[in-house]
Amino acid sequence: MTNTGPSERVTIYDVAHAARVSTATASKALNDTGRVSLETRDRIKRVARELGFRPNALARSLTRKRSFSVGLLTNDTYGRFTLPLMAGISEGLIDHGVSVFLCAIGDNPDLARIHVNAMLDKQVDGIIATGKRIDKPLPVDLTRLSVPVVYALTAGPSNAVTLVSDDRQGATAAVNHLLAQGRRRIAHVTGPSDFQVVHERASAFAQALDEVGATTHARVLFGSWSEHWGHQAIEALWSGADKPDGIFCGNDQIARGVVDALRERGVSVPDDVSVVGFDNWEIVAKETRPPLTTVDMNLKELGRQAGLALLRLVNGEAVETGVWKLPCSLIVRSS
Amino acid sequence: MTNTGPSERVTIYDVAHAARVSTATASKALNDTGRVSLETRDRIKRVARELGFRPNALARSLTRKRSFSVGLLTNDTYGRFTLPLMAGISEGLIDHGVSVFLCAIGDNPDLARIHVNAMLDKQVDGIIATGKRIDKPLPVDLTRLSVPVVYALTAGPSNAVTLVSDDRQGATAAVNHLLAQGRRRIAHVTGPSDFQVVHERASAFAQALDEVGATTHARVLFGSWSEHWGHQAIEALWSGADKPDGIFCGNDQIARGVVDALRERGVSVPDDVSVVGFDNWEIVAKETRPPLTTVDMNLKELGRQAGLALLRLVNGEAVETGVWKLPCSLIVRSS
Repeated sequence: MTNTGPSERVTIYDVAHAARVSTATASKALNDTGRVSLETRDRIKRVARELGFRPNALARSLTRKRSFSVGLLTNDTYGRFTLPLMAGISEGLIDHGVSVFLCAIGDNPDLARIHVNAMLDKQVDGIIATGKRIDKPLPVDLTRLSVPVVYALTAGPSNAVTLVSDDRQGATAAVNHLLAQGRRRIAHVTGPSDFQVVHERASAFAQALDEVGATTHARVLFGSWSEHWGHQAIEALWSGADKPDGIFCGNDQIARGVVDALRERGVSVPDDVSVVGFDNWEIVAKETRPPLTTVDMNLKELGRQAGLALLRLVNGEAVETGVWKLPCSLIVRSS
Repeated sequence: MTNTGPSERVTIYDVAHAARVSTATASKALNDTGRVSLETRDRIKRVARELGFRPNALARSLTRKRSFSVGLLTNDTYGRFTLPLMAGISEGLIDHGVSVFLCAIGDNPDLARIHVNAMLDKQVDGIIATGKRIDKPLPVDLTRLSVPVVYALTAGPSNAVTLVSDDRQGATAAVNHLLAQGRRRIAHVTGPSDFQVVHERASAFAQALDEVGATTHARVLFGSWSEHWGHQAIEALWSGADKPDGIFCGNDQIARGVVDALRERGVSVPDDVSVVGFDNWEIVAKETRPPLTTVDMNLKELGRQAGLALLRLVNGEAVETGVWKLPCSLIVRSS
């Protein structure tokens, strides 16, 4: 145990960390509340003294009965978006001594309600709601809970904080990258037309081409979020006379199908056709031959921001409501 | 509200479900303990009466101070194994009114300890520990907790219940399938040699071939868990004179690389060479051309069994300790 001397910067987390207990246990021990054994209590108090912990900040947080935990609700059972988000939330909150608990609520409203109530029973300080798509709400109403709620990658009410990635900006970066490669006959092969993200990406695609007067050969093909659709789209595009020299795909799986189909036709990527994906799902993007240039939605950073926004709400600080659009990054590889 | 009349089978979960509250809240309300508003308490009691709920079972469970929640700890940040497992645990426990909370503890022992303590602070009834591989323990000691712990797909102590998939049986099924296709020159292309599952699968491969006297052309190639390695392995195998007519791969990503590499050499799958993968990771297996025949570890069923084993421990029932090996299934597709 190093005695670092008194400091403003010693937090309840530091005490908990050094004493190898949770922040909630540390706060109970230092305030002589809750059920903590006498031995543990004494040890935690000794550690707090040694670190120079000042109890004032703690006393403030305790009056708010904080539990130093937040709940993450999701109906994304596949975890494609939820797990990177959760990693970001954890990363953002661990310095504040806050743990994250994930509960998968599924799509059944009755079961979802049970799980939400179970989470409230755990006295989490707040909840982050996330899901499979930004244009659908979770199957349970979270607007009248006793704790603050932040929405991430799922539809939230207008008076809440909702974090999504800036798909327009990401799609624009993708198309501008193709234009910078000298491509002018650019097609967009994307997912189902009833997804809001599909419209945002397609609209940004059209606008970026319009700005450089390259719309003559522009085409948008809607399909499914699958490799199989990538193959079908290339079959359709290559059966006509006006073949593209650049393809922006709505996700990495489509892009992988597109790249494979082009190679099998003897069309070189990127010499003949440049391809850009969307998601930077590494398992797909890195194993594509050649590795995919793609748009990263920065889900981990989005999670970090969602966690910090929730923490501000828990602390009673003002947070701007509405939809926060966080920037995407273009990851340039070889396609 | 339908009055189903008194019945042995009405559980606390049914009451909570009908009253749209968590099981913990329902149990507090029915026992006049904890913080539940008078209005909610009355409503829950009315619902319980209408359903014919008998409080005896509840009274029993309450003497054990059950919270109707279990914690799932993982250091598998990718979620490849953890999410199907979690879905199975939830499915197995929801009928008992129990919710599952996932906490990602990472690989740092100090942070892991904080998260475990945070979970204990939530007074979960028990913990399921899971991880990235069956031959490594989590970075935190769970042997002296106040609640029961079950291990799934991670190394546990010998006096605990540990659930894993029966990789030997799964690998044997894969090789027997290749033999049934008339294949006799069978190679095994698999992952890193320091994984226990790699050894179990390779040893089952050798034994299955030995039993039919087909070991002359048997080869095992160790590499990484990647598509890239599948391509490299085919390059190595096809540079020699003794080319296999069947390939059993250590996972689906390797198998996908193998199938792609064979197609690009003009070798037909399955006419010239039959290929079997391992994992049944649908995103890979279904999009392989042709779709992969592969071994499914039945992770959801494994999760369900882990959840029910934990519940028995929570209820003070006897559960056989040691390693439970659960059967895999061969999923026959077109490769």
